Amino acid sequence: MSILVVGSVAFDTIETPYGKRERCLGGAATHFALAASYFTQVRMIAVVGEDFTAEHEAVLRRRGIDTLGLEHAKGKSFHWSGDYLEDLNAAHTRQTDLNVFQEFDPKIPAGYMDSKYLFLANIDPVLQLRVRKLMPKVRMVCGDTMNYWISAHLEKLKPVLAELDVLLINDGEAAMLGGVKNTVRAAEHILTELGPKAVVIKHGEYGATGFFSKRIFAGHKGARPFRAPALPLADVVDPTGAGDSFAGGFYGYIASQPELTPTVFRTAMFYGGVMGSFAVERFGTERLQNVTKAEIEERFSLFREISHLE
Amino acid sequence: MSILVVGSVAFDTIETPYGKRERCLGGAATHFALAASYFTQVRMIAVVGEDFTAEHEAVLRRRGIDTLGLEHAKGKSFHWSGDYLEDLNAAHTRQTDLNVFQEFDPKIPAGYMDSKYLFLANIDPVLQLRVRKLMPKVRMVCGDTMNYWISAHLEKLKPVLAELDVLLINDGEAAMLGGVKNTVRAAEHILTELGPKAVVIKHGEYGATGFFSKRIFAGHKGARPFRAPALPLADVVDPTGAGDSFAGGFYGYIASQPELTPTVFRTAMFYGGVMGSFAVERFGTERLQNVTKAEIEERFSLFREISHLE
Repeated sequence: MSILVVGSVAFDTIETPYGKRERCLGGAATHFALAASYFTQVRMIAVVGEDFTAEHEAVLRRRGIDTLGLEHAKGKSFHWSGDYLEDLNAAHTRQTDLNVFQEFDPKIPAGYMDSKYLFLANIDPVLQLRVRKLMPKVRMVCGDTMNYWISAHLEKLKPVLAELDVLLINDGEAAMLGGVKNTVRAAEHILTELGPKAVVIKHGEYGATGFFSKRIFAGHKGARPFRAPALPLADVVDPTGAGDSFAGGFYGYIASQPELTPTVFRTAMFYGGVMGSFAVERFGTERLQNVTKAEIEERFSLFREISHLE
Repeated sequence: MSILVVGSVAFDTIETPYGKRERCLGGAATHFALAASYFTQVRMIAVVGEDFTAEHEAVLRRRGIDTLGLEHAKGKSFHWSGDYLEDLNAAHTRQTDLNVFQEFDPKIPAGYMDSKYLFLANIDPVLQLRVRKLMPKVRMVCGDTMNYWISAHLEKLKPVLAELDVLLINDGEAAMLGGVKNTVRAAEHILTELGPKAVVIKHGEYGATGFFSKRIFAGHKGARPFRAPALPLADVVDPTGAGDSFAGGFYGYIASQPELTPTVFRTAMFYGGVMGSFAVERFGTERLQNVTKAEIEERFSLFREISHLE
């Protein structure tokens, strides 16, 4: 069923030990939508500037992504510039130009109102909350955030967290949000104090761990934590968007299933890792634009093979 | 079948956020032997001082460990003092007193000569190599080392690595030994240039990854890397010896099986994680002295449950 995603569509200027790219099509919503598009229909809410051409839109359209909610505004698109020269695991931001995103007031096209799954990609929590309130009838809400919102705008973030079925964050963000370095205790704090019914903590090259409250699986017993692997890769060409691609594979798979069961959630974490592993193989969204369903299934089998006893 | 282990038997003075313990029975060979003792017969080669009493020896004997190879020398036992107050993942050494280990010249009791499995725990590579040469007929050699030997004594370590079927190290040591931060490339370098047929890289709370050369599994196709999980723990009381306990569970299981197959190796990595997870629940070797076979099997099932799709 349809996922509605709100988040950034941007141009990224990226330098890694593998080279440099100027103004690749990027942004959290773009990575998410491309990754999710292999599993289900995706609708986007975002704003772009005059530098976003029909050619860029065609990249999304070719993957069947509904871009009716893509607002075209005067000015330039969101632009991020950064590098991973010192550490492939942590982006070093050189410059962020919000541009058209500064004045963004999300509107939902009428045709999007029947969307059953909502994804709040990493943007200003005020916008995340506004979109959530505009879509009161969705079946499930999943969201991402980042260290900046946790450290500087926690009060704005809290009402968003209270709306989430699943929060996706990384180790550092979990420690910050949970107020403790221990992953289990951080997850406990997030689940009992902040609202999400489940939290998926991403460990980069080591995979991800899901933690669940009793409220998440209706009719199923409370699930134990679950660990999904990541693929050991000799070449991480560009880590930009790996987390958003994980979210796209994860949520896209969930939206393609009739019901959220522990097995569906676990399988979704594997597909998240699969899409993340494709994303980092090339710069920007290059790989995500051209992967095939057969390649995805093959890699899913590989994930199982490298982590299952038989 | 019997494992012969050479390594340190020591007294550890440890401080962690959970408290402080003076002179617990410890050392790499002790942790290894206790963990392995739940799977197979273990024989020890080490030296202890006059402060090592019959009571200490009884701790090993109660687990059926053969201590005939434990040399009693004049002077004090090896003593290590350290803390984990700043970081539970990295020991801060306060003091190391080699004491009787300074003059240690390992001798193999005649009754140990039929041992089929040799474990070279982390000690001076000169001693590791000497023991290896004294046991030319073993079926398999597995070993550990640490950053100190890699950075300051690589030339002494290299002939040891050349003798190993399996090398067990952590992420930092792998990067040091492989000369590159990427785990896959570091493992490749170790397997192709340094001699081990397999390397198990331990990621602490994130589990471990095994990498294999084609030479490891006779009659089986070269195996893909394998990722085993670690248990998400709310309380890590004392990380001392976690790696040695992993090695004990891992190698103990292998020695209990008729043949080394990819499935045996993978299962062994799970048992390694299981024994490591017990070790850190209490100070020193306290937990490893009193775990039961039933608890081990129960935890093994839990490891499978938290990492397998069905």
